Amino acid sequence: VHFGSDNVVGASRKVLDAIVAANDGAMPSYGEDALAARVKGRLRDLFEHEVEVFMVPGGTAANGLSLACLSPPWGEIFCHEESHVMTDECGAPENFTGGAKLVGLQGVGGKIGVDALRSALEAPRRGVHSVVPAALTLTNLTECGTLYRPDEVAALAGLARRHGLKVHMDGARFANAIAGSGASPAEMTWKAGIDVLSLGATKNGALAAEAVVFFDPALAESMPMRRMRGGLLVSKGRLLSSQFEAWLDGDHWLDLARHANTMAARLRNGLAAVPGIRVPWPAEGNEVFPVLPERLERALLAQGFRFHRWRSGSLPDGGGPGAGEALVRMVCSFATREEDVDKLIAAAAAATEPSPA
Amino acid sequence: VHFGSDNVVGASRKVLDAIVAANDGAMPSYGEDALAARVKGRLRDLFEHEVEVFMVPGGTAANGLSLACLSPPWGEIFCHEESHVMTDECGAPENFTGGAKLVGLQGVGGKIGVDALRSALEAPRRGVHSVVPAALTLTNLTECGTLYRPDEVAALAGLARRHGLKVHMDGARFANAIAGSGASPAEMTWKAGIDVLSLGATKNGALAAEAVVFFDPALAESMPMRRMRGGLLVSKGRLLSSQFEAWLDGDHWLDLARHANTMAARLRNGLAAVPGIRVPWPAEGNEVFPVLPERLERALLAQGFRFHRWRSGSLPDGGGPGAGEALVRMVCSFATREEDVDKLIAAAAAATEPSPA
Amino acid sequence: VHFGSDNVVGASRKVLDAIVAANDGAMPSYGEDALAARVKGRLRDLFEHEVEVFMVPGGTAANGLSLACLSPPWGEIFCHEESHVMTDECGAPENFTGGAKLVGLQGVGGKIGVDALRSALEAPRRGVHSVVPAALTLTNLTECGTLYRPDEVAALAGLARRHGLKVHMDGARFANAIAGSGASPAEMTWKAGIDVLSLGATKNGALAAEAVVFFDPALAESMPMRRMRGGLLVSKGRLLSSQFEAWLDGDHWLDLARHANTMAARLRNGLAAVPGIRVPWPAEGNEVFPVLPERLERALLAQGFRFHRWRSGSLPDGGGPGAGEALVRMVCSFATREEDVDKLIAAAAAATEPSPA
Amino acid sequence: VHFGSDNVVGASRKVLDAIVAANDGAMPSYGEDALAARVKGRLRDLFEHEVEVFMVPGGTAANGLSLACLSPPWGEIFCHEESHVMTDECGAPENFTGGAKLVGLQGVGGKIGVDALRSALEAPRRGVHSVVPAALTLTNLTECGTLYRPDEVAALAGLARRHGLKVHMDGARFANAIAGSGASPAEMTWKAGIDVLSLGATKNGALAAEAVVFFDPALAESMPMRRMRGGLLVSKGRLLSSQFEAWLDGDHWLDLARHANTMAARLRNGLAAVPGIRVPWPAEGNEVFPVLPERLERALLAQGFRFHRWRSGSLPDGGGPGAGEALVRMVCSFATREEDVDKLIAAAAAATEPSPA
Repeated sequence: VHFGSDNVVGASRKVLDAIVAANDGAMPSYGEDALAARVKGRLRDLFEHEVEVFMVPGGTAANGLSLACLSPPWGEIFCHEESHVMTDECGAPENFTGGAKLVGLQGVGGKIGVDALRSALEAPRRGVHSVVPAALTLTNLTECGTLYRPDEVAALAGLARRHGLKVHMDGARFANAIAGSGASPAEMTWKAGIDVLSLGATKNGALAAEAVVFFDPALAESMPMRRMRGGLLVSKGRLLSSQFEAWLDGDHWLDLARHANTMAARLRNGLAAVPGIRVPWPAEGNEVFPVLPERLERALLAQGFRFHRWRSGSLPDGGGPGAGEALVRMVCSFATREEDVDKLIAAAAAATEPSPA
Repeated sequence: VHFGSDNVVGASRKVLDAIVAANDGAMPSYGEDALAARVKGRLRDLFEHEVEVFMVPGGTAANGLSLACLSPPWGEIFCHEESHVMTDECGAPENFTGGAKLVGLQGVGGKIGVDALRSALEAPRRGVHSVVPAALTLTNLTECGTLYRPDEVAALAGLARRHGLKVHMDGARFANAIAGSGASPAEMTWKAGIDVLSLGATKNGALAAEAVVFFDPALAESMPMRRMRGGLLVSKGRLLSSQFEAWLDGDHWLDLARHANTMAARLRNGLAAVPGIRVPWPAEGNEVFPVLPERLERALLAQGFRFHRWRSGSLPDGGGPGAGEALVRMVCSFATREEDVDKLIAAAAAATEPSPA
Repeated sequence: VHFGSDNVVGASRKVLDAIVAANDGAMPSYGEDALAARVKGRLRDLFEHEVEVFMVPGGTAANGLSLACLSPPWGEIFCHEESHVMTDECGAPENFTGGAKLVGLQGVGGKIGVDALRSALEAPRRGVHSVVPAALTLTNLTECGTLYRPDEVAALAGLARRHGLKVHMDGARFANAIAGSGASPAEMTWKAGIDVLSLGATKNGALAAEAVVFFDPALAESMPMRRMRGGLLVSKGRLLSSQFEAWLDGDHWLDLARHANTMAARLRNGLAAVPGIRVPWPAEGNEVFPVLPERLERALLAQGFRFHRWRSGSLPDGGGPGAGEALVRMVCSFATREEDVDKLIAAAAAATEPSPA
Repeated sequence: VHFGSDNVVGASRKVLDAIVAANDGAMPSYGEDALAARVKGRLRDLFEHEVEVFMVPGGTAANGLSLACLSPPWGEIFCHEESHVMTDECGAPENFTGGAKLVGLQGVGGKIGVDALRSALEAPRRGVHSVVPAALTLTNLTECGTLYRPDEVAALAGLARRHGLKVHMDGARFANAIAGSGASPAEMTWKAGIDVLSLGATKNGALAAEAVVFFDPALAESMPMRRMRGGLLVSKGRLLSSQFEAWLDGDHWLDLARHANTMAARLRNGLAAVPGIRVPWPAEGNEVFPVLPERLERALLAQGFRFHRWRSGSLPDGGGPGAGEALVRMVCSFATREEDVDKLIAAAAAATEPSPA
């Protein structure tokens, strides 16, 4: 049973059916298909705002292209020190921006602290010797499975905007953040000061479909050329647009995320009840990060459960793994079954029971 | 009826079914799935050579990544002056290589002439003031629908290699070139001096699947990082590997290409028999480039036939459109139906018939 | 005697003295010195226009930074096919711009023909698949020693501007072009449609001093950061500003150029009178490109005269070297002595005299 | 009296005279002059090792080019978090490397701690998702005026090399580090594991002259092209080579550095004796970083003394400025006069004397 990531499963049936349904007949290539226009309309309705939309096959591309539209090569981009753009993209943001500098900020639970951001923004510059503060990027759902609520986004984005920065949201798990927070997409983004969103469908039921959503069209001016010369304009655009259309239809995206979140909450609650297991952060989305005895970690892996050892410097004080303990990451997806969650909980409970005398 | 391009249709039924079949269950992400390993094995067998394989969603990405592995930023890359890398990728090769210089060479029918290449290679350099000759890239099938036969590839590649260059083949329509030439994949590539191939499935029956195939593993060393930081490593890798597996299975790829080529030959022969139409290049693959009276062009477009006006400087002497004529491109795909080809031919013939007195 | 280039000699005495005179005492670094402000004022007066000025140590840097301010990475930059930016900078423009595409245009005598430019500008584009026309760069004095007069600049620049391009002048030998044409600096630049000038002092009496001169301050916005992160902001800025101040003072720059041009004209006239020598282009500046018998070339080199064999595709019809002939480049500088010119002419004449019977 | 930086003064008389002496006559351009060959010979003797030498006009260029030779675009470069490459070059290392990631490490007094480096090197990587550790760069003299002794360099460089990294030294103030440590240039560099040195002459008596010194020629392979296409190959190379030749002649470079260091020690000792002033780091080179009462800072500035307010996170515990205090930087140069140092000390002492009752 696989809790390794939300990208180890395929697409939801509805999304897959849409790919199949869109396969027949001739359509204009390079994103000029009629489905793409409908996706844009749906996103406009969903976000209650005019949008420019650029679909790409992956999240690293969406982030890199977004940041390149917000920061010049000599820009400074603020992010959490453990964010995906900082630690998991092999320098893609530097590649797409032409060498901008990512500055990692600290904060508990993967969330940038307002004070950390303020301090970074107010640090003295040395004119032309310093890179130029250009953008802030927030990941929501964060890499720790926590979420920023709209007022938290607004506090950080507002601060950044008062210093002249543009604000990006890495929404690889945006659906989970929306499902977890109960906020509307508009409240979570442009109403809170977000200029550009990487809207991820892949981890939440699509096969390969991400969209860069601009709330300010002026920022999107260079995007068509950036996407093209990055080799990221899919020629048979129906592949992307069909996925998005089905994903957005009838709140399918939200249903998928709610399921994943529900499974994660169930997993969290089940594990937290097992003696010897702590869960340092709330499971506000579809990820759970328990601290386990290493002995238990081994036992579960031996039984075929799949999850990853994790490292984080953003644990709450005293919440980190002690000697003989391990922090691990378990991820639920739209396809996670309740019975598998329960199996994992049961296995953990069984493995920690004291052996009879 | 659409002869605009071979990317205006979806996937073949077999490829589509494979995507669906691969959808269920958990698989490792980021290209570590078992299907990917099988695809590599199939390509090794097909090319009769050890290969390194990197699947990506599009052809511009495949070309850009390939060339970046062959040329430093100060490299000089020789290509046909009307090649896709030169004229249709918005500078993607420059982007991926970090600023290499593409030098367009002339040649009839989209094929680089040996003399043009020799002259370029032997041009005097001014030491550090000149860029450094690094790579040759050949497009096969060419952008003019012609093809290089293995001995022609070997002549150009051999010349380039004697000057220390590496050689790339842009095989966006490689299947059509193989079907058209009757050569084996090995004869057309490494046996003729090709180091790296962009192997395109998208235009020939896949939905979005291209592979960079290295015949010299040493050249592939930087590829994993380049692909990752280009945002081109698809997380749910099964999307790409499932397409390739079905495409390669049982000569499906070749069957699809043969059909497209057959349709193009039928179209070419039919049009060539219509008075007032000339076809300056042979249709060696799935593309036909007739010279039509502009009046006829308008008539066909008005009847709903779709194709593109073309411009080329590589027409044979005297073969170009005269006053009142137009060069157009018509492309057949795996999905083109014989009856549609015949309809187009009949419409052309009808439109050119002299009106009765 | 060295006619190899105008950068094989040092600085004029006046420029050198200025470096020495500026050496003592403390001055703000990084271009904030008082001399730099005075240089800007002098250039404003000289060009009769508000200017933004950025001094750098070399011409390749000046060109690369200029073009990076005029073209995005996906831009298309038109230049003569034999221009310095195209053939002699190891891809520096591509490096500075982040991968823009230089397109070389033909034209006799190193001068872009209006028709060649028009044809390039009017070539059809394929939307996002094509790079975006961004800039035109003219070299004046050209690499062939010819010059564009203000009306010729205006014809090309005007055409480019009507297509939305910005226009740069590579003025590595701007002084020689001004001296040769009799035009004012204003007439040769902004009055004729030039947006940015690389103003070279190095080849004309300075030791290492070039200035990028912007006539439209808005175009200079990113220049301070580009120069800094290119490692091109000289910390002890007095080195550059002292050279420029002396060079501009009392028409020193023009006196130096006039001398060089006079020597070149003398050389041209002298050589043209020698039987068997042709000079296909006028010597409008400080360079002479004679076509010599190869036997004579060898004889002169053997006597210690230094000059370079040249190749050019921009010779007038029938003007190129025939069998047994060589095109060579001879360059005069501010330091070239009349007696050395006469020695070269005499040696050429002597070597071509028929041996007595 | 100016203690703002060591680049606010010009060149030493000997260096200036050498520029003048090298001015006359013809010499090959682009670094092919005979002086350049002599400089290389002198550096080989000085470092007791074969070297490849590339002179450039500035230190940011020297660092950027060096790092680009040591790290691919996807490389990770470890440096002190307050190093010049990290905070003062507007992202030049990112620019030259094509987007490598600089990782700032902590350490007291501007010196990277061995534990901090070990921890960074041993941090787990996530395969292709992580950038690849490529280089370590040490600044010596550090930005805090402290120095690494050869055994300290060896400890850090050795650790880095055992992890497969290459090691660079930013020696903008290398002369001061040599003078301060008493180590030989060989002991401080290749004997301690340094692969490439940015050897700075500018801050220590030259006008604009830095050299990248490679101890492993294989690492220098791409350097000529990188320098050229960065616009950093000075055409009249004598400007750089003449400075270096004089600077290296007869230990002139060391004499200049010793003077600057002596002045700094005098300044440090004088200030440390003034009540209310603390000097948290030793003045091991030519820089002093006193913590002053802000009232005193204002008084000294008002009297015309020039120095900069500084910020540092690498102060020893408890050594930082308290309320009403300021950390400032004062720099001595080859040209600093003893009487000016004494004036500053006296002024500080006078301003802090208790007013008579």
